[in-house]
Order: sequence, then structure tokens, then C-alpha cells
Amino acid sequence: MNPDITRERENATFNVEKLTHILDGGIEKTKRRREIESLVISDPDFQSEDLNFLSRSERYDAAVKKSAQMILKLREYGISDPEEIYCYKSVFRGNHQEALGLHFSMFLPTLYTQCNKEQFKKWVPLAESFKAKGTYAQTELGHGTHLRGLETTATYDPATQEFVLNSPTITSIKWWPGGLGKTSNHAIVLAQLHTQGKCHGLHAFIVPLRSMNTHIPLPGVVVGDIGPKFGFDEVDNGYLKLENVRIPREHMLMKYAKVEADGTYVKPPSAKLTYGTMVFIRSMIVGEAGSALAKSCTIAIRYSSVRHQSEIRSGEPEPQIMDYQTQQYKLFPLLATAYAYKFVGQYMNQVYHRITGDISQGDFSELPELHALSAGLKAFTTWTASEGIEVCRMACGGHGYSRCSALPDIYVNFVATCTYEGENTVMMLQTARFLIKSYQQASAGHQLSGIVSYLNESERRLQPQSVSSRPTVVNVNDLASLVEAYKLRAAKLVEVAAKSIQQELQKRVSQEDAWNNSAIDLVRASNAHCHYVVVKLFAAKLGEIGDMGVHSVLNTLALLYALQGIQQHSGDFLQPGLLSVPQLSQVSQRLKELLAQLRPNAVALVDAFDYCDEMLNSVLGRYDGNVYEHMFEWARRSPLNKTEVHESYHKYLKPLQAKL
Amino acid sequence: MNPDITRERENATFNVEKLTHILDGGIEKTKRRREIESLVISDPDFQSEDLNFLSRSERYDAAVKKSAQMILKLREYGISDPEEIYCYKSVFRGNHQEALGLHFSMFLPTLYTQCNKEQFKKWVPLAESFKAKGTYAQTELGHGTHLRGLETTATYDPATQEFVLNSPTITSIKWWPGGLGKTSNHAIVLAQLHTQGKCHGLHAFIVPLRSMNTHIPLPGVVVGDIGPKFGFDEVDNGYLKLENVRIPREHMLMKYAKVEADGTYVKPPSAKLTYGTMVFIRSMIVGEAGSALAKSCTIAIRYSSVRHQSEIRSGEPEPQIMDYQTQQYKLFPLLATAYAYKFVGQYMNQVYHRITGDISQGDFSELPELHALSAGLKAFTTWTASEGIEVCRMACGGHGYSRCSALPDIYVNFVATCTYEGENTVMMLQTARFLIKSYQQASAGHQLSGIVSYLNESERRLQPQSVSSRPTVVNVNDLASLVEAYKLRAAKLVEVAAKSIQQELQKRVSQEDAWNNSAIDLVRASNAHCHYVVVKLFAAKLGEIGDMGVHSVLNTLALLYALQGIQQHSGDFLQPGLLSVPQLSQVSQRLKELLAQLRPNAVALVDAFDYCDEMLNSVLGRYDGNVYEHMFEWARRSPLNKTEVHESYHKYLKPLQAKL
Repeated sequence: MNPDITRERENATFNVEKLTHILDGGIEKTKRRREIESLVISDPDFQSEDLNFLSRSERYDAAVKKSAQMILKLREYGISDPEEIYCYKSVFRGNHQEALGLHFSMFLPTLYTQCNKEQFKKWVPLAESFKAKGTYAQTELGHGTHLRGLETTATYDPATQEFVLNSPTITSIKWWPGGLGKTSNHAIVLAQLHTQGKCHGLHAFIVPLRSMNTHIPLPGVVVGDIGPKFGFDEVDNGYLKLENVRIPREHMLMKYAKVEADGTYVKPPSAKLTYGTMVFIRSMIVGEAGSALAKSCTIAIRYSSVRHQSEIRSGEPEPQIMDYQTQQYKLFPLLATAYAYKFVGQYMNQVYHRITGDISQGDFSELPELHALSAGLKAFTTWTASEGIEVCRMACGGHGYSRCSALPDIYVNFVATCTYEGENTVMMLQTARFLIKSYQQASAGHQLSGIVSYLNESERRLQPQSVSSRPTVVNVNDLASLVEAYKLRAAKLVEVAAKSIQQELQKRVSQEDAWNNSAIDLVRASNAHCHYVVVKLFAAKLGEIGDMGVHSVLNTLALLYALQGIQQHSGDFLQPGLLSVPQLSQVSQRLKELLAQLRPNAVALVDAFDYCDEMLNSVLGRYDGNVYEHMFEWARRSPLNKTEVHESYHKYLKPLQAKL
Repeated sequence: MNPDITRERENATFNVEKLTHILDGGIEKTKRRREIESLVISDPDFQSEDLNFLSRSERYDAAVKKSAQMILKLREYGISDPEEIYCYKSVFRGNHQEALGLHFSMFLPTLYTQCNKEQFKKWVPLAESFKAKGTYAQTELGHGTHLRGLETTATYDPATQEFVLNSPTITSIKWWPGGLGKTSNHAIVLAQLHTQGKCHGLHAFIVPLRSMNTHIPLPGVVVGDIGPKFGFDEVDNGYLKLENVRIPREHMLMKYAKVEADGTYVKPPSAKLTYGTMVFIRSMIVGEAGSALAKSCTIAIRYSSVRHQSEIRSGEPEPQIMDYQTQQYKLFPLLATAYAYKFVGQYMNQVYHRITGDISQGDFSELPELHALSAGLKAFTTWTASEGIEVCRMACGGHGYSRCSALPDIYVNFVATCTYEGENTVMMLQTARFLIKSYQQASAGHQLSGIVSYLNESERRLQPQSVSSRPTVVNVNDLASLVEAYKLRAAKLVEVAAKSIQQELQKRVSQEDAWNNSAIDLVRASNAHCHYVVVKLFAAKLGEIGDMGVHSVLNTLALLYALQGIQQHSGDFLQPGLLSVPQLSQVSQRLKELLAQLRPNAVALVDAFDYCDEMLNSVLGRYDGNVYEHMFEWARRSPLNKTEVHESYHKYLKPLQAKL
């Protein structure tokens, strides 16, 4: 054990294990998580070469192997609870992706929820036995978030009782679905349904892609890998071009909408039913933002405690780089953010399960709010977490740039969340739509409830004159007071956006153009709303924590999180007079004090995330802090070191000398 | 040609070619650049497979091949002017790196400047004929920017008149030098010189690493590749462990310092002589920041003009995504930034050449200012450009994540500049040291000249009381007035940092601790200083431009750049009363107008950067806008598509079915 890191752990002022239980949701959950993790870690089948040393084809191969093994192991161990499967996967995936990911996350769930009885009986056993390996093919080369724009057609032919599927244009080629390129032999294809000469919009069809015997693509199916990406090297994101592919009528998923044998179309009862999955996936992503940032902080903070560099006082030994105020200012607010997002993830998960219960009772009342919240928080957390991962990486200096730090892998795989499951700016504008609607309702005298209830007060309290004359009441040492400041900031920015729309309308532009011409303000408003929610939930979490030591350190983190946000967006707080100029100087001063206060607990705070070395897969983030010898060992395994002299010497360099 | 992009070009209000000449520095330079570019583009030897389809070893192989070819071609074409070589390399490298990069950028220049006459006669011909292929080995596994911390030793043995080189610890292993792993047979090694029982600090030694005949490592030399990184896949960044490696006394570079035969050490005359190279490389990086961002904007803006998505007005066709205000707000300020950095790069280059003249005359007076400026601007521009590249990538939605967009390559290769040639935070603190020193001189009554002369006024003008009572004079439509606002903001933040140090000193902490405890403020001050310099230089550039159409569009860009910076850092401007609250709303409104104003010129503005398709190597950034058909074509070449059925199916998936 590196003595520097040992000393850090000795200096912690709180019980790390207790904090881990809080993060897991209880001592029992910590225990079970560790049991599952040790199943993977101790399993010789999962020991493999670092994927960074392999070619893309080898990486895909290794991922398919792992996924196949995992399926057998999960059965062997009898793990079937979704949360436990998720936990198992988190360990065995490490910082990479799973080859059969979409079979589990989209193909199976869609079959479970959208098959009618006969379809369920046929397809679920095929999918559960992996005879049918599937994916979910929605986005097209020319079309993303805007579903109405999708071009793939499924035209019903009553003569043969079949649907004929086509990709009529180059832009209609399905593009991006994970596992589509090489792995899947089936896909749920989203296509515009045409029957009896009319288009009935997007519906889902089960399309066989490859022979279940030979895996060779079926006639009319042009399918393949879309090529290398920023990350996701293990995944065969694919393309799919359909050329008059015929499937039986029964391959349309018919739990809700139907096409009868003669081609008669039967409408689905409600469109809201599909909201649930989106909300669920987005709220999972919020938790993932917390995890990705927590892993990155673990790596950067442990490394900062063993890395010595330069000098603060001349003549003294090189200090740990964590002693530099600039290093603390980079990392500790991110550490606070990781905790914040973990708690927000917990909250979203709880709300989702509660509301799901309501929905199954036919009560959709809370869904719009949750939908809006999950969209905005997905965008808010993934943007900041992505930036934060890169800050962590660069805080490790040159070595952060090596793949052995794991930070490049974490970044390229996580940053995709800013784009998938709803592009972030589009998400922010969805949240804004809910905020503006709520604001208008409040302006019209309706009393709002839930998280937007603060907009009720806005009309009364936020008149410019009243704000500037109102004595500033924010106490920068009091979390409740800071939550209030964030709330007022959000209220103000929602108002600014709403007024921008009004002003545009006064110029006689259309409603839609007024919206687009205010989009910058709308995104700002959503950001401020989400920021408020995060600060509020962090503060609320503190109320649940009994242990004094843990409470104290989390309180410091929460203050740091809130104050740093104020410093970064100081204009938003100064502009409406929520904070005075002298208070802003106070915020800067207080931030420095909080950094110094957190310094002795930094390593313990990342230890509490409890990521084992196997999950981090980072030489810089090792628990024992012995980074340099392991970097050297890792480097020696680099593929370029397989031979002393690389063949390119004989091919190009030696001949070059002769020519000069 | 895609009709959307044709229409964009028709709508431009200025002459693109004239702007290209301004960027190149004159019509003749544009002409010569295009000549050189066409040499590479038309050369069948440089046609190669997309590197993204290759394994790391294949990529290295391809890069060595290209470098070897380049050397022969440059001779063949008689290109020897450094600027022209740089231009040639820019095309043939594309978004990747050169295998022999450090031979040209560090090994040869060090030999040119630090060899004495005899050494020059021996080593320069060897290096110029590539018999000696070299690199520059400075950083060690445990040591980066802090040169005094380096541990490698060179101990003089007068008995044999040799130096004995050693890596005494694991942390002393040389780590990171480009080309060290497999390519080089020599390195200039920086080591602590010991002679006659005394250590004389860091000196440079020519160390043979591999046999010049067989390329096999020499005895005592443990050398290899450090493994895969975030980017730079083509480069064999290496490690080097020296175990009692003996080299003749004459292998120490002795133009300045010397060790005589008996071991007597002779000191060098001045330490400042090595400043020049650092300043030069850093000012080059500023230009590279402009180029990397310009390339990224070219890709994202062209793609935004041909990509249609969602709807603004319901029922109408999907609009070009560039019509969304949020998309404009992401991309146009970055476009303005790219122009700003290109102009700053030009300026730095001019200043460098002017000052180099002075230095050769023995006049070092301007060096400290240039050194400070190049450090800060290197950090300032690389941070913002790196973030900007990712914004461009994400603005392309899902397709930005594909390697075919080229944006992942541009990012991973460029972002390394934040860390190498002086880690950015360290750079910012170096600039801060100069600013604080200047501030203190001004406070002591000295009259400052040059770029920091604004600190002269600070004592008089920036007393808090005088600022708040002073009527706000900023005119948000007048660039000169905005430059003034940036200047006052910088002056204010330098003052805040200086006062923080004073306050710390009053707490009786040491000078060094006071510095460290004010580091956040110091970095902020440097940032504000650099921001001021960039705005000022952009405004100054406008004065040189005669063409009305070009002047007008650049003026819009400069205003956008300045106003967006104010919006992003509005607290800095509100806090000292440089801007009033109503003015800030005016800034927001004006920004939206500028975006709309730039919209018709966006494609023309990226066309003016004049990156040919071969240099961009981006399917999304194609000049003709025909992205989708070429994405499909590119994808089909993906290595995973070499076979219809990937071998992993037979190895794992087929057997899995049997087991379930």
C-alpha cells in the first residue's frame, strides 16, 4: 500500500462504510452488491486482456464471448431480479459495453409489453432462449429524434396477408441500433404503416434479418456494421436496408393497434402508454451520470494523493498534487456533483416506481411532470458529467491521456448519453415546454402543485422593482437559504423566457417562430430549473442522514456544490438581485474554505463509492496507490512491444536511409 | 452538389476568396499553399485506407510509411522552407499525427542550437540523412512540468571520459516522448549531471538507443511503447530505462555548458536562451487551436445546412437544423472564436519573429512579456477550442459520434495540447505571476508598458467606490467599447488576485502559501487577461481590412465573440459595475440578432477557411454536402463487414443456443 494513500485514509473524519450503505440504499444492499461483484471478480472466465490492446474485431469478439458467458452464469447463479442483473452487468462490463445490450434493454421489454397473447407465446420463448437475438431499429440515416420524419414503410398486402417492408430512400436506411450489424437475427423495426391506401403512422414490426440456422442475411435484407465510433468499439451498431421484405401480418406488434386480415386498421387506446419506458431509461441515465463521475473522481483523487509534483514552498519535497488549490477546485466540486447525481438518481428511481404504480391504476396525473423532469435532468446531468470526466482526466496530467487511466474509456462511452435517448438540447426544450405551460397556468391564476409550484409565487414576487428593493436574505452558509436562491433564479429565468416569447408574439411572428426565437432563453430556464431540483434534492437527502460524521461531510459537499454553482453562474444571481456584490465575494472566500475543509476527507469520500479495482480498471485509480510500477507493467503488454523491432523498420526506415 | 448547400453559398454577402487571402496572409500565400496541398492530394502514394479501420500496429505502420515517403517527396519537390514544410505536413497528416514528428520538431532543432562546432559536424549530417532517427526524452514516469524533479542521472567518469546514464528509480523512467518506443535509434536525454561529486542540474545528452544497423536496442537500454492512448494512435510514445549506459564525454551537448576531460564543469552564460523554443511552440499551438476549431466548425456548419430535422412550424417540411436558434447559439460563437484564434495565431507569429530578431541582437527586454503571453494564451485557447470541438461534434447529433465525422479524431488529437508543452493550469499561473509582478510594479509607481499597461490605471480607476459611482459607459454595439470593458474586467480580476495574496500574507502565512491559497483567483485573472488580449487583437485586425463586405461580416463575428463572452461571464462584468443589469438584457437581445444576421453567411465563413475534403477527411463536412450516400459507402468498408457472418457467431452464439 502506498504510504501517502494510507495516511489519507487515516485522516478521514467519518465512517466510510456507513456512507457506502447510504449510497447503496442500506446495509443489506451493500452486502448483496458485494456478493454479486465477487461472483464476477473471482470468475476465471471473465479474466481477459485489456480491451485497449485489441483490434475492433477482437473487441467485438471478446464482448460476444462475455455476453454469452454471462447469460449462462446468470442462470447458473439464479440471478433474475432486474436490479441484481444490472449490478452483475456493471461489474462484468467495466468501462465498456455489452454486445447483447439491446436484446435485454429493448428487444425483450418491447416483446413483453407490446405482444398480444399469441405473439407473446411465440416470441418470448424464442427471445429468452436466444434463438431469436434481437434489437430495436428506430433511427434512420436521415432521421433521429423526430419520429414523424421516419421513412421506412410497411405496406399491408391483403392478398397474401403480409406486410411488405421497404427502405424507399437512402435517408430511410436504419442506422445506429446496437447489435444490428452482426449479432441480431431479428429486429423490431419501426415503420410507417400503410393499409387500404392510408398511412397510419409509426408502428412496430418483428422482422427476421438472418437465418436462425446459418446466420446469413435473408433475401432483401442488407445489413452490416456502421463502422468505428468514438467509443462503443465492442458494439456492432448497424445499418439495415429493407428491399421488399415480406413478413406475415402477425409480425406487427398488436397488443394496442391492429391490422385485421382484410387490412382494416384498429387504433390503439392511448399514446401515453409508451412514455413509461422513456422515463425509466432517462432516469437510469441520471444515475449513470453519477456513477461515471464517481468513477472518474475516484481515479483522479486517488492519483492526486500519490502524485507529487513541483513545489509550493521552495526547497521542500514535491507536494501531493491534491495540495494545490487549483487541483482541489477542479476535483472537489465534481466530487460533490457525483454525490448529488447519485442522490438524484435514487430519487428518480423511487418516483418512477411510485408513479408506475399509479399508472397501472390508470392514474396518469403525475406523468407529465415526471416526463419533463426526466428529460431535463437527463440532459443537465449528462452534460455536466461529461465535462467533468474530462476535467478529471486532465487533472491527471499526461498520464490521464493514457488508456491505462481508464478515463478515455469512461469518457467516450459515457458522452454518448448526451445524444442518445433524446438529444440533450431537445430534452431541455421539452422541459421548457412544461415550465412555460406551468408558468402560463400560474399567470392565469391556477395554483400549481409539485416541483413547479415555485412558479405560483413568481408573478407576485419577481417584479423587477420589488426584487431590487427587497432586502437580500440569502445566507451563504445555510443550505436552505441557497436552495431558495436557486429557486428564485429558476423562477426568474422561466419568466425571462416566457416574456421573450410574449415579445416575439407582439412582433406578429407565429407561435412556433416565437418559440424558436426564444430557444436560448428556454434552455437557460430549463438548466436553472434542473439545477434547482438537484440542489433541493441534495439538501433533502441530508435530512435523512443520522450519523453525525457522515452528515457533516455531506453537508460540506452540498454547500460546495451549491456555492460553486452560484459562482459559475454569478450573473444569474446578481442580475435579479438575489445576491449582492459583497455576498459574491463572500461566496468566493467560503468556497476556498470548503475546499480546505474537504481536503482530508477526499480519498475517503471516493472510497465510499466502493468501486473495486476490477470495475475501475484504471492503473491511476488503484486502491493501493501503487501506480508507477503497474503503469510500467501495463505498457510492456502493449501490442507494439510484441517484437523488439517493428516490421515497419525493415519496410520503410531502413530502405529510406539507402535512398538519402 | 447538394442543393441546400448551393443555396447557402449563393446567399453569402461577401467575397469568400478575399477572406481566404486574409487568413493566409496574402493572395500569394493562398496560391502557394494550394500548390503545396495539391502536391499531396494528387499524389497516389498518399492515398490510403481510413486509419480508423486499422489496428494500432497497422496505423503505426501506415504512419511510418507516410513519413518515409514525405521525406523523399520534400527533397524531390525541393521544399525546405519551414512554413512550407509545415503546410505540406498539415495536408498529409490530416487529423492524425506524424510518426517522425519529434525528429523534426525537437531532435534536429536541439542539435542545431545546442551542438558545438565538432558536434554539429558529426550529428547534423547523421540526423539529416535519418541514419540517426531521434527524439527528445525529458518527462519521466513520476515527473512532468517540474524540471528540477527529474531523476535520470548522468555521472561523469574521468577514468574513461564517459558519462554513465542511469534510471535510478521506477519514477525516473523516461515516459511519453513521441517516437521513442520503436522508431528512434537516438534520443536527446535530459539528465541531472554529476561530476566531481557535485550535481549541476539538468543537461542534454545524445544517447544511442538502438543499433544503427539492426535497430536492436543496445545493452542497458530498456525501451518500448507506452501503450494505447486517447489519441495519437500513430505515434509510438515510449519509455526508456537506462541501466549503466555509457556514452563518450562528447555526447553531452556542449554549446553552452561543458564538462572538461578531467570532469571540470563549465557553466552556461545565460538560461534565457532556451526560452525561445518554448515560446515558439506555444504560439504555434495557439494557431493550431484556431485550425482545429475552424475544421470542426466547417464540419458542423456544413452538416447543419444539409441536415433536416423535426419541425419549427407544424405541417411544414423539416427545416435545416441550422435554422434552430439553439444550433446557431452553439456553432456561431465557436465560428467567431475560430476566427479570433486564427488572428491571434498570426499576431503571435509576427511578434515571435520580431522578438527573435531582438534576441539575436542581445535584447531580451520583450521576452518576459511574450513568454507570459504565450503561456496564458496557449492555455486559454486550447481549453476553449477543445470544449468547442466537442460542442461541434454533439451539434451533429448521433452522426458526430461516428468516426466518419472526423470530429472524434480532431478532438482526441487536439485535446492533448491542454496537457503537453506546459500543463494548462501551470501555464495560467505563469501568466498570473507576470501579471501580479506587473501589478505590484504599477502599485509601486512604475509606469508599465506593453500589453499590461492597463494595470497602470487600475489603482486610480478601480477603487470600488469610484466604480459603482462611475456612470456605465459601455456601448454594446461598439467593439472599442467592449474591448475597454474586457480590459477593466481583467484589471479588476488582477486586483482581486493581488488583494487575496495580501490578505493571506496578513494571516502570517508564507509567500508561497499565500500564492497557493490565491491560485483560483490567479487563474481567473489570467483567463480574463487572455480574453482581453483576444478581443483586442480581433478588433485590431478589423482595422487592417479594407474590403467592405469582408469587414462587415468579420465585425459581426467580433461583436458576437465579445458579447457572448460577456454573457458567459456576466458576473465578472456586473460585479464591478462595468455593465448594468439592463445592459445585460440588451446583450442577450443583441446576441440573438447577431446570430440571425450571421445565418446567411455561415457556410461561406467556413468555406473561407479553405480546408479541402482531403484535409477534413469528414463525411459530414464534405464540400458538396452529399453526406448520406458517402456515410453508407464508408460504413460498408468497416472491418466488421469483411465477412457476412462474424466468427464470434460460430464460436459463442450458436453454441449458446444449444446450452439453453
